[in-house]
Amino acid sequence: MAAELSDILIRQARREDLPALVAMFAADALGGHGDTTEPEAFPDYLRAFAVIEASPDQTLYVAERGGEVVGTFQTMVTTSLTGCGSSAMIIEAVQTRADMRGQGIGALMIEFAIAKAKGRGVRLVQLTSNMMRRDAHRFYERLGFKPSHLGFKMALK
Amino acid sequence: MAAELSDILIRQARREDLPALVAMFAADALGGHGDTTEPEAFPDYLRAFAVIEASPDQTLYVAERGGEVVGTFQTMVTTSLTGCGSSAMIIEAVQTRADMRGQGIGALMIEFAIAKAKGRGVRLVQLTSNMMRRDAHRFYERLGFKPSHLGFKMALK
Repeated sequence: MAAELSDILIRQARREDLPALVAMFAADALGGHGDTTEPEAFPDYLRAFAVIEASPDQTLYVAERGGEVVGTFQTMVTTSLTGCGSSAMIIEAVQTRADMRGQGIGALMIEFAIAKAKGRGVRLVQLTSNMMRRDAHRFYERLGFKPSHLGFKMALK
Repeated sequence: MAAELSDILIRQARREDLPALVAMFAADALGGHGDTTEPEAFPDYLRAFAVIEASPDQTLYVAERGGEVVGTFQTMVTTSLTGCGSSAMIIEAVQTRADMRGQGIGALMIEFAIAKAKGRGVRLVQLTSNMMRRDAHRFYERLGFKPSHLGFKMALK
């Protein structure tokens, strides 16, 4: 697996990665986020990309293999008073392209995020995972995460 | 309860609220964040407050009654490609002062946050709650949140 993964590059997402990223999210049924490759929706993705790019706290990454986007995740560093004014990194929107799963790309992405968090002196890395994604839960526990919290959501639209 | 709550003001935290906020977090055993009112720790809280204040995505609030801080929470608005480039609000570090619980202050704070989220056109409000805080889980479900996710954390220090 290590040999296979030596050809994976993790880097910040660029504008030209957007079509591949949208296609990956659109192919994710369980997320149920209504993502679509319809051209009418593209300006909304462009706008969101610009917001993420401009934020000092948020970063969107891609995993690339042979010039193709094969995975993605996003990080957000938050600061809070709790923990004597500590910082935390939240990892969100982790996806590996369907035909690239089971090869360790997801683990590589999460380990990359953890290394970034350590580099920034962050106290804690956290994420939430849909209750139904049992495989994902085992994956995160293998990487050293503890399922210590319940994640509550409320849809507003 | 409504009559009692008409005297609660929710507003952005100010620098001079910090001692009261630190005392509230220090009194929270379950959080286990090592918060302390020791003067040596105060500069760290000040630094964190400055970071939050400077962030375009993060806002720290207090609930005030009769000039005293009786509750606090923090919001963070994140933008992601998923959901056609949608935004979400994360609510964190929700605390009501121990002697002020059971009066609806927590619900008022969360409803305030939800109203802010709606005002910003946010698609989703989310938060995580320690597995052991059963009362908090019932509280969030009563307010309309669904416990749809597992929250994973990894301490880095």
